[in-house]
Amino acid sequence: MKLLNTKVILYIIGTFLMIEALMLLTCAIASLIYKEDVMPILYGVCITGGIGALLHFLFRKTDKDIGKREGYVIVTSVWFVFSIFGSLPFIFSGEFSSITDAFFETMSGFTTTGASILTDIESVSKGLLLWRSMTQWLGGLGIIVLSLAILPLLGIGGMQLYTAEMTGPTKDKIHPRVKDTAQRLYAIYIMFTGLQVVLLLYGGMNLFDALCHSFSTMSSGGFSPYNASMIEQTPFIQYTVIFFMFIAGVNFTLLYFALHGTFKKVWNNEELRNYIAILVTFTFLIIGAITLHSLQTSSETISVLNLEKTFRDSLFQVVSLVTTTGFVSADYLSWPVLGVMFCFLLMFFGASAGSTSGGIKVVRLLLLAKHSYLEFKRLIHPNAIIPLRLNRTTVSEKITTNVLAYIVIYIVVYVIGVIIISGMGYDLETALGSVVASLGNVGPGIGEVGPMNNYAFLSIPAKWFLSFLMLCGRLELFTVLILFSPAFWKK
Amino acid sequence: MKLLNTKVILYIIGTFLMIEALMLLTCAIASLIYKEDVMPILYGVCITGGIGALLHFLFRKTDKDIGKREGYVIVTSVWFVFSIFGSLPFIFSGEFSSITDAFFETMSGFTTTGASILTDIESVSKGLLLWRSMTQWLGGLGIIVLSLAILPLLGIGGMQLYTAEMTGPTKDKIHPRVKDTAQRLYAIYIMFTGLQVVLLLYGGMNLFDALCHSFSTMSSGGFSPYNASMIEQTPFIQYTVIFFMFIAGVNFTLLYFALHGTFKKVWNNEELRNYIAILVTFTFLIIGAITLHSLQTSSETISVLNLEKTFRDSLFQVVSLVTTTGFVSADYLSWPVLGVMFCFLLMFFGASAGSTSGGIKVVRLLLLAKHSYLEFKRLIHPNAIIPLRLNRTTVSEKITTNVLAYIVIYIVVYVIGVIIISGMGYDLETALGSVVASLGNVGPGIGEVGPMNNYAFLSIPAKWFLSFLMLCGRLELFTVLILFSPAFWKK
Repeated sequence: MKLLNTKVILYIIGTFLMIEALMLLTCAIASLIYKEDVMPILYGVCITGGIGALLHFLFRKTDKDIGKREGYVIVTSVWFVFSIFGSLPFIFSGEFSSITDAFFETMSGFTTTGASILTDIESVSKGLLLWRSMTQWLGGLGIIVLSLAILPLLGIGGMQLYTAEMTGPTKDKIHPRVKDTAQRLYAIYIMFTGLQVVLLLYGGMNLFDALCHSFSTMSSGGFSPYNASMIEQTPFIQYTVIFFMFIAGVNFTLLYFALHGTFKKVWNNEELRNYIAILVTFTFLIIGAITLHSLQTSSETISVLNLEKTFRDSLFQVVSLVTTTGFVSADYLSWPVLGVMFCFLLMFFGASAGSTSGGIKVVRLLLLAKHSYLEFKRLIHPNAIIPLRLNRTTVSEKITTNVLAYIVIYIVVYVIGVIIISGMGYDLETALGSVVASLGNVGPGIGEVGPMNNYAFLSIPAKWFLSFLMLCGRLELFTVLILFSPAFWKK
Repeated sequence: MKLLNTKVILYIIGTFLMIEALMLLTCAIASLIYKEDVMPILYGVCITGGIGALLHFLFRKTDKDIGKREGYVIVTSVWFVFSIFGSLPFIFSGEFSSITDAFFETMSGFTTTGASILTDIESVSKGLLLWRSMTQWLGGLGIIVLSLAILPLLGIGGMQLYTAEMTGPTKDKIHPRVKDTAQRLYAIYIMFTGLQVVLLLYGGMNLFDALCHSFSTMSSGGFSPYNASMIEQTPFIQYTVIFFMFIAGVNFTLLYFALHGTFKKVWNNEELRNYIAILVTFTFLIIGAITLHSLQTSSETISVLNLEKTFRDSLFQVVSLVTTTGFVSADYLSWPVLGVMFCFLLMFFGASAGSTSGGIKVVRLLLLAKHSYLEFKRLIHPNAIIPLRLNRTTVSEKITTNVLAYIVIYIVVYVIGVIIISGMGYDLETALGSVVASLGNVGPGIGEVGPMNNYAFLSIPAKWFLSFLMLCGRLELFTVLILFSPAFWKK
């Protein structure tokens, strides 16, 4: 038996590429409507679809035996190959200054990061902007359902990939039949996206912008077709986006339960409660920091209107950063130092497991907090057996150490990343900001990659390295890093 | 039964205060020799000794029953009370600008941190400078033997404190009889201090300076009676200090084995090997960064003399930072960015458990690395039982989770510390630097608290907060933080 069934991997990649070509084709419609040059997209469709079809039919009769090893290789390479082929329209258009930039933007899309190298987004043609937002939407969908829906459709059980792909340690299954489950998650995702489009249209946005923003919201991506992101939008639109960013940060299993009326299970979920608690706490901490600072420095009286704006800006940025969406409604780097520090800290958090958000995830932080407190209890009562409980169930020691290891590895990768970016000659704040924003799939960071800036000025090696971090963060570290471990390549 | 036996705590604190008074008294001799005002020291001796004696004799007939709870309270309060009373001579002298400054300097001494608020060290009277270095020496001694020597002398078994005081997770006992063990460690500590004094005298230092520097080296403290620390010293003196900083960072149990000819056990010790590997690796990384940078920017040819200086400076700072001593032989903030980043990273490391160094400690980082690698192996072979081994022994799951929790809590405390210092209005680099330098008991940091600066300019709240971090770091976090956990105060 071979170590790796390469043929089935190529077969699956081929199938996925055909789907990518099909999605890309829909963007050609936008190009046609706006009377733009449709050829860059069509070239992309032909090459992607052609190579996809070739691989699919060449290896279609292969043994569909897929194990853990194949699972890991497939997940990482699908995201990588999607980004390679997805960047083709950008390259052919000539609107991107280099292949590196085109790849960076596409990887940033498929990993739902939202970091951009575009300095004037509004000058880019509509078809490409739609594709740019669609990469995020596909990436978000991929994160939630790839392992549960598409692989079973190919006649291959997706459960081997479950550990590789499921964001976070939660294993709460909705339905024993994987395929049905996936289709339900899929339906929820589309439903909420549609609902947001309708609300944004009602709020006065045109269909194109509403589509782009909805694609980037439900995937917690953060690409906007506007140069100013969400800064100049009406309160109604901003609150709408806040609501859907929040939804995108909820475990989709819980959304399913909520839609089917099982509210008790939803409300008793500890991760959801803590997710909401984090949002509320940090919103008020930031409001406090801003208000205190403006009281100290200006003689202006604080009007109710100002307060509403401060509240909205704070809530928007907190939700945007915790869900790792990265939409910008205010220049948070202009806030007082304490406010900036809170924003920077939130970039590490992430929302729920099983959502489209990146970062460490609330459930891991929750387990960490509980475990730490238990360590103190165990010091005082060394002989007592005190189990760690989550949602009224005991969490095994195995999962606990795995979660702790995850957090520590996340920090180690972060630190190494900061050293590498610093070593490339960037200042400390830019290094701290760009690495957390890439690894956590946030988008905007601090320093030179803040909410008012972009990633265009970075060197070619920096852009490739940050793209790699996006992929690592998006696929929960282990999935990618395991491919570099010698143990993986031993029988 | 009461929750806490307060009387025995007061009795032990009283006894310790008498010892502190006695040690302080020896500094009066220096004052007399240098014909300085001896009264500030004598006032300190009288108050400390008086209150100590009062507590000792008042509670001497108390029940000597000491449990885990008393142990934790004693350890933390001894360090705190020592710093309060130890700052008296500084306060009475009028040479310190405030009570806060005097307390900060003393806490920095007893925790072997070495962060100073003195802007002109050489203008301070000799008696006080000797006491300043002696606080570090006592602190270092305390870390190693407090729980193993002094408490048994009081007729109380020290083993209850073992978990509270022993730096790091190693439990390798030298000798079953605790009191003997402690006295041996004590002897090693004094022997190496004496040896360093002799070598520094041989290198041309006067007795006073040799004593002060040896006190600050073996305790990995870092206070120097010179304004320029080690910058203008001869290569001989610098290499001598490097050697003893290295020794101070070795587990004292291993030093004992080495002195008794059991070299095999020493050489096979994984922590020692990795400690040396870290020193060698980072020295060469920094030499590389400096050489590369100077090749790029200057047309000077690199002479052998320059290379030796670069090697010595790099080695000195790497050993000084890893052992958390904090002596300065070169302004590392003037090094290229990558060199600065390595220095900053090293401030988190710490040397061996059971040494006088602070920081996270090599053995914990080693367990972390091993555990992380095992997690990958476990992902590939989910049903295999793969134990974590250290020094050819299996490490229990309990110790592993404890170590992981320790590292994570260390990082959490660090992050909260940075946010608080930032919130007080200092820039990010100063916050990052001052918090790691305090929590890790290093001394010099980055930003405004770099090797060429000091802590004088910080606000009063910042100084008290950083003093608290020094104490937390020195007593291995749990010991201090447990006193703030509600579980500790419940029966």
